[in-house]
Amino acid sequence: MQQIQKNFCFDGEQRTYQWHSDQLQNDAKFSIYLPEQALLGEACPAVFYLAGLTCTEETFAIKAHAQRFAAQLGLILVMPDTSPRGESVAQGDSWDLGLGAGFYINATQAPWAEHYRMESYIVDELYNAVQSHFPIQHGRIGIMGHSMGGHGALTLAWKYPEKFKSVSAFAPICAPSQCPWGEKAFTHYLGEARDTWLAHDAVALVYSKGALFSEVLVDQGFADQFYHQLNPQLLQKACAEVGQKLTLRQHQHYDHGYYFIQSFIDDHLQFHAAELTQ
Amino acid sequence: MQQIQKNFCFDGEQRTYQWHSDQLQNDAKFSIYLPEQALLGEACPAVFYLAGLTCTEETFAIKAHAQRFAAQLGLILVMPDTSPRGESVAQGDSWDLGLGAGFYINATQAPWAEHYRMESYIVDELYNAVQSHFPIQHGRIGIMGHSMGGHGALTLAWKYPEKFKSVSAFAPICAPSQCPWGEKAFTHYLGEARDTWLAHDAVALVYSKGALFSEVLVDQGFADQFYHQLNPQLLQKACAEVGQKLTLRQHQHYDHGYYFIQSFIDDHLQFHAAELTQ
Repeated sequence: MQQIQKNFCFDGEQRTYQWHSDQLQNDAKFSIYLPEQALLGEACPAVFYLAGLTCTEETFAIKAHAQRFAAQLGLILVMPDTSPRGESVAQGDSWDLGLGAGFYINATQAPWAEHYRMESYIVDELYNAVQSHFPIQHGRIGIMGHSMGGHGALTLAWKYPEKFKSVSAFAPICAPSQCPWGEKAFTHYLGEARDTWLAHDAVALVYSKGALFSEVLVDQGFADQFYHQLNPQLLQKACAEVGQKLTLRQHQHYDHGYYFIQSFIDDHLQFHAAELTQ
Repeated sequence: MQQIQKNFCFDGEQRTYQWHSDQLQNDAKFSIYLPEQALLGEACPAVFYLAGLTCTEETFAIKAHAQRFAAQLGLILVMPDTSPRGESVAQGDSWDLGLGAGFYINATQAPWAEHYRMESYIVDELYNAVQSHFPIQHGRIGIMGHSMGGHGALTLAWKYPEKFKSVSAFAPICAPSQCPWGEKAFTHYLGEARDTWLAHDAVALVYSKGALFSEVLVDQGFADQFYHQLNPQLLQKACAEVGQKLTLRQHQHYDHGYYFIQSFIDDHLQFHAAELTQ
């Protein structure tokens, strides 16, 4: 695991690492924010952040303005890339498929299946590696994400509740089986049999697995240019039906970008810190 | 003046405008953060932020994490580009000359003199335009900047103290006449007569014009990879000799980038808000 960038930030360090991923069959990067407590060797709770389409391991680190409050709370932030990378990796035909669009699932179809294994990469390989290399409190790991990464956070939390103790999302794709982005990605990565999609669809998972968390926090802007892809009302309905407490905050004027995320990031970090230290 | 981007952020708006600049003889962009108070028509104090080499009107808006506290303080932030742009503009031979490297002066030498008039653009054209278009409190305008923009903030404040009531900087080029970046830029933009450079050198201006501000705030990282270009000790000596109060904070471990700036941006905004509302 090679450290390729390091910047001091709020008495902690924002770092980028490159390493070989067995799951992705290629080199991969992730970035991590270590608050001062972690630099001093003190074990801290951690939150994985999964980014959206076209993003990388740098996007959240640069644009979300999370380090200030993570430093105050003593939270480690783990920021993976959004897909496998490299010349040998299937590239896709546009910004919503292939590179930058891994959708946090393990693809089963050619040409994707060889490298597009973001689910196993996140929940097994990276999850274990960061716990070996950094002072993370045992079992105190949360997950959040934005858009495609909000889908990733919700689905991975519902698939692996033993691994993630808290979950939140900004403008998540709540029901990828029922929107153009998800239909395109799942058709390519998983094939045309729609019943196989449901294991990777947050709304379907909530119905099938029921209430798993004490609370879920979701923020959504009403001026989101991709609102039609996101279906927060379906998540709200599913959570209500199974008795899962969902705090869904919908905000006038806010759009889909990081100016929206930065406006509410402190609330999400506070939410995770509270859930993880219970 | 055409608004080309708008994002709601902390109950205010981050906007980008494009307009024709007579000074730069070309189209130019700037971005502006308007806190909620300004959106409601209430006059607010404003701070110009001048960015460093290679940056644009977007850099500070995305990377400095200033909007949260600007919203709290009710401060307008004005973020110009760092040079003229366009195909007709002399491009320069590298990242430290020409595009992205206007140095906030009016060039006197060919081929630069036609478009490279960032000083007049900032202090006359843009200064007047933002006061006409946005609810800025009369006379309550400060200036800050980073690196080349820290040089710009200090020199424009010392040249035009009637226009800027407060000044601060992150890792400024304090004495461009005495460092490689400044020597290269001034030789090209102003010619080889070094005595003409002194009117655009913060340390020389402090000596020649004396103490002009109740306080100046400068932050500098000791791990700054460009420390040898910056000469904070010369600014400290000049301010001490003329009786100008300078709060120079030098920080272990921090480097030259925006992870450093974001760590201390709140202190700068607080400083300007206090100075501007006196």
